[in-house]
Amino acid sequence: MNAVARKPKLWRFFFLLEKQMMFFPILILLINQASKMNAEDGAMEELATEKEAEESHRQDSVNLLTFILLLTLTILTIWLFKHRRVRFLHETGLAMIYGLLVGVILRYGIPATSYHNKTPPSCSLKEGPVSTLLLNVSGKFFEYTLKGEINSREIHNVEQNDMLRKVTFDPEVFFNILLPPIIFHAGYSLKKRHFFRNLGSIITYAFLGTAISCFVIGNLMYGVVKLMQFVGQLTDKFYYTDCLFFGAIISATDPVTVLAIFNELHADVDLYALLFGESVMNDAVAIVLSSSIMAYQPAGANTHTFDTAAFFKSVGVFLGIFSGSFAMGAVTGVVTALVTKFTKLHCFPLLETALFFLMSWSTFLLAEACGFTGVVAVLFCGITQAHYTYNNLSEESTTRTKQLFEVLHFLAENFIFSYMGLALFTFQNHIFSPIFIIGAFLAIFIGRASNIYPLSFLLNLGRRHKIGGNFQHMMMFAGLRGAMAFALAIRDTATYARQMMFTTTLLIVFFTVWVFGGGTTPMLSWLHIRVGVDPDQDLQQCGDNFLVLQGDGTVPDGSKTRQESAWLFRLWYTFDHNYLKPLLTHSGPPLTSTLPACCGPLARCLTSPQAYENHEQLRDNDSDLILNDGDLTLTYGDTAITSNGASSSGGDAAGGSDGGRGVNGKRSGSTSEEALEREMDQEFLSRGTRLVFPIEDHA
Amino acid sequence: MNAVARKPKLWRFFFLLEKQMMFFPILILLINQASKMNAEDGAMEELATEKEAEESHRQDSVNLLTFILLLTLTILTIWLFKHRRVRFLHETGLAMIYGLLVGVILRYGIPATSYHNKTPPSCSLKEGPVSTLLLNVSGKFFEYTLKGEINSREIHNVEQNDMLRKVTFDPEVFFNILLPPIIFHAGYSLKKRHFFRNLGSIITYAFLGTAISCFVIGNLMYGVVKLMQFVGQLTDKFYYTDCLFFGAIISATDPVTVLAIFNELHADVDLYALLFGESVMNDAVAIVLSSSIMAYQPAGANTHTFDTAAFFKSVGVFLGIFSGSFAMGAVTGVVTALVTKFTKLHCFPLLETALFFLMSWSTFLLAEACGFTGVVAVLFCGITQAHYTYNNLSEESTTRTKQLFEVLHFLAENFIFSYMGLALFTFQNHIFSPIFIIGAFLAIFIGRASNIYPLSFLLNLGRRHKIGGNFQHMMMFAGLRGAMAFALAIRDTATYARQMMFTTTLLIVFFTVWVFGGGTTPMLSWLHIRVGVDPDQDLQQCGDNFLVLQGDGTVPDGSKTRQESAWLFRLWYTFDHNYLKPLLTHSGPPLTSTLPACCGPLARCLTSPQAYENHEQLRDNDSDLILNDGDLTLTYGDTAITSNGASSSGGDAAGGSDGGRGVNGKRSGSTSEEALEREMDQEFLSRGTRLVFPIEDHA
Repeated sequence: MNAVARKPKLWRFFFLLEKQMMFFPILILLINQASKMNAEDGAMEELATEKEAEESHRQDSVNLLTFILLLTLTILTIWLFKHRRVRFLHETGLAMIYGLLVGVILRYGIPATSYHNKTPPSCSLKEGPVSTLLLNVSGKFFEYTLKGEINSREIHNVEQNDMLRKVTFDPEVFFNILLPPIIFHAGYSLKKRHFFRNLGSIITYAFLGTAISCFVIGNLMYGVVKLMQFVGQLTDKFYYTDCLFFGAIISATDPVTVLAIFNELHADVDLYALLFGESVMNDAVAIVLSSSIMAYQPAGANTHTFDTAAFFKSVGVFLGIFSGSFAMGAVTGVVTALVTKFTKLHCFPLLETALFFLMSWSTFLLAEACGFTGVVAVLFCGITQAHYTYNNLSEESTTRTKQLFEVLHFLAENFIFSYMGLALFTFQNHIFSPIFIIGAFLAIFIGRASNIYPLSFLLNLGRRHKIGGNFQHMMMFAGLRGAMAFALAIRDTATYARQMMFTTTLLIVFFTVWVFGGGTTPMLSWLHIRVGVDPDQDLQQCGDNFLVLQGDGTVPDGSKTRQESAWLFRLWYTFDHNYLKPLLTHSGPPLTSTLPACCGPLARCLTSPQAYENHEQLRDNDSDLILNDGDLTLTYGDTAITSNGASSSGGDAAGGSDGGRGVNGKRSGSTSEEALEREMDQEFLSRGTRLVFPIEDHA
Repeated sequence: MNAVARKPKLWRFFFLLEKQMMFFPILILLINQASKMNAEDGAMEELATEKEAEESHRQDSVNLLTFILLLTLTILTIWLFKHRRVRFLHETGLAMIYGLLVGVILRYGIPATSYHNKTPPSCSLKEGPVSTLLLNVSGKFFEYTLKGEINSREIHNVEQNDMLRKVTFDPEVFFNILLPPIIFHAGYSLKKRHFFRNLGSIITYAFLGTAISCFVIGNLMYGVVKLMQFVGQLTDKFYYTDCLFFGAIISATDPVTVLAIFNELHADVDLYALLFGESVMNDAVAIVLSSSIMAYQPAGANTHTFDTAAFFKSVGVFLGIFSGSFAMGAVTGVVTALVTKFTKLHCFPLLETALFFLMSWSTFLLAEACGFTGVVAVLFCGITQAHYTYNNLSEESTTRTKQLFEVLHFLAENFIFSYMGLALFTFQNHIFSPIFIIGAFLAIFIGRASNIYPLSFLLNLGRRHKIGGNFQHMMMFAGLRGAMAFALAIRDTATYARQMMFTTTLLIVFFTVWVFGGGTTPMLSWLHIRVGVDPDQDLQQCGDNFLVLQGDGTVPDGSKTRQESAWLFRLWYTFDHNYLKPLLTHSGPPLTSTLPACCGPLARCLTSPQAYENHEQLRDNDSDLILNDGDLTLTYGDTAITSNGASSSGGDAAGGSDGGRGVNGKRSGSTSEEALEREMDQEFLSRGTRLVFPIEDHA
């Protein structure tokens, strides 16, 4: 992990470059003024600084108010659009437009005045820059901290660009404050069933596809860079690794707009699962890929030559960071599950929610503290929490946690997008290079195409339920770039190459979100992709034979076909169902029946009383996992049995009358994907232990 | 408002004094290192700083992890205590104990090592400290920002106290990040009915009482200070205004522990309302009072003499800040109400919640930007939101917003209390002065006594339902000091006097929370205060005559008695019921019936369709407002009419079957105060328009 240590700028929470403002649920203003907790200056001096500080604080409040009002305006316009069913512009696109407008106003509308218009005093030192500097003013010592280097031409307007600098966030804010809730929410709200059904394809697209896309884009861009050097348009260094880095950051797709429209129109669930899964996973891949490429960079003095050792080191770094982050996320998820299982915390939903929140957050910190990637850890933590902890939470906490993260996610996402709009005009080091920009637009299409089409072809060889041509075109089309590409690009804008990348990324995000996002609805109809699909009907259409998992978790022979990574997957499923679920949650078969007899006492003490009650009749919802693309064969009977043993017809169960923990017949729409919103609230209906008899039992 | 500008340290969000960490919902680490977005240093230099920064970031993550684990531990222990019904130690007391333990470990357990153990380089300037300093290192310029003055004895261990400094938050974090959600929650979860019933008494205790307490404590402490000077124990200046300031900060009571126990035991509702209302309001009063005292301070060169002009200026500042902040809060609340009323935002609960959150937050910023007190504005915003906006929210949003702020409140409160524990050992400028501490303990008791007993006597002259002796003793006993006193004290610890105050405040908080908080249950039984009270029964016991409000909001004569500020109150109520409620919410009588005929067209366009539907049968829940202490005479019939006109028996209505917006008979417990938690979820049952006929109508 030493190589990780060299990722430039990767591990910084420094908010000191600009007069920072930070927005997340409660706002933080950071002003580069002195806090004088221990100061004992003269009263006059203090009063002067006092006034200045107060003025500065007030200004910051005003700036932030601007942001809040921007978001408020966005929300109101979103409502208007939703109300009038406008689909050509998604809320994120809208947030960007508002951001752009405010950016223009800040840039050109407000005269660049500053309250004291002088060059700050300077002093000289022989040594290099140090983080802490002492200033001796007639015997009194003052501590100063390094803010950064400034160009000699900028010295005279250090104070003048204040307004623009004030609205510039530290890049790390995006990484450490705004992305975690977005990513956690993605993991936590994952529609397990369709996700796992397409897991093989998703992983292929996310890992192999992102790597292909990264290298294709990287190489194409290297060609573009060579062309620029040839034409004489490139004034500074631009290495091959820079191109690869660009390939990595721009490979992170974010089809938030597309998925929102899918949700609204009830487009095909498998396509939805593929797109959602790919975009969630490839964010993680892109983060780790970009760090690995940076780890590669300093290995050789001449970065143009291919260094095998450095390459394998990078691969090692990739695997190390990825698996480390994955492990961190999974471990905290499991710990939370254990804590919620073995305490009766669910009697106090507030405590439970707070614990859930803190544990999920500590994943991020733990990963950062260990040198892994917090954001990636948070993604897998979210998935683990949804898979295990969720089953142990009280009814109230399930909705509470969902809603809490939903609000955080919503605010963070819209904030990022409106900030993107703002950044186009307020970021002060843009480098617009037409050749590079045109080259990048071409490269991302070629990169996306060489990800989707070849991999789909390969996957179709193994899939029963083929990924059709129209699906492939739609996936190609849905390769929008969004928050993650932006956050990765803004993370480091120190060099000429990075500044050019940042500018280009910003333009790509604008273009894809507006044009592709807006074109989703026409594209869907043009490609003849089914809309208005009821995910349950969808299942029934595909076959009437059914697959039921025995109480001990084994799958009856005869009804299974070739699956994506079938044996590994079934192995994992069986292990999860027989040991992990019962160990970590209140659901699943009792451990006493799945563990060997010698472990009896241990098993008894680890099994929760609920598990015994449910035994025999138990049929875990996750049996859906076993279903693969070709086998949409699951049917349920009409009779549902509530967990307390009372029998009711499927129609009655639809209301979820026993408070969401109940048992729903197949037709009650328990896994309906009608709307993400409704899903959020309903998802608890489809979790938990389901006690559904196959129809034959009653025939 | 110019005087406000001189409040020292009052308006700072500077997080730069220490290696700051910030905790709120998502955590922010602030490290005093350079961010080098635009830096183009040599690679070696960069790598070195890189490593250092990374190390520093990792350390910060570990520190924060400590905080998170501390909170997690607290939550688990709270659960254990609740589970075992332990009442001698409340969660806040527990959080303090854990904080203390970690403080001891940080202070004594970890050797003060640092990764580079040298005195930082220094340079000299003739001018005073400037906020921005340039450093010229062989032609390159680096920008530095002022961190603060340091003592010459501390120069050599600038880096050594890192660990302790890292866990030291900027005081403004408490004020600007942690307090707002706590205060907003207090306002938003206010139990309107009992609060308004005792409004007169609450305002008397909060305004007059806090002022009395402040001056009594201030004068007593001035005596103590004189004594210390006489004995020779005081080594530095300690002005009369310092004493008054101490009186102001220590007058803010925070009976969170007591109220939690009241809730659990269902203690007397009127006592609860008095205590809750007083503590909420006197926080606001204490904040503004302390700013006003600071505004007084620099008026005369000799602060010992009484300066009439300065005194009145302070009073003016007090009134200005208070009314300004009040207006800000009310205005944003009203704007939110209007927006939620006139858009169909309630179809999209997520948007609605986000809007609600942003608008409430913008109150804080707006007040800060205008030079008022954000925290006070947020309190009144919370009350306004609860009174108006709440009625317009969708069912989902009502729970969502409640729960969101409940979680934020819980986390913030526990964080503050555990930080208090930590601060006892990690704050580095404690001044323990036994005389001052003993004097302060005596002063706060005398101050509390001269607040409660004389005012209760005066209030009892005007109240029918007297505040009994046991109630008075309980209020005396419940004068715990908590988060607000701490936040006000830590805000400025620059001078000797302030450091001594901070230390003393900390000790007072510990003592009162542990001893008085723990003694609540025995005290309740010793004072023979009723527990296990059903608030509805409570009402019925008091009389059988009833008071019903006509549809037009006038109160029938004959059943009313002397009220606290009766005419003003009734005037306000009538205005609120007839004009504000119908204008701002979907409830209340249609404006067309309350406004004069000439305003017809305007009234029609401002009245929501729901209001017409409800007209004739309308009986607003807020008629409870009219009830004063002496007249607990409200009874309802057994028959409730749901808003769509269907009639059902009171017993049936109890389930709130029509989704919380329905109508509940009196006995259905719609205003039950059994538990704060349940109230949160249930409160929407008691809001909205109630259509209850008095029993006579059916007899």
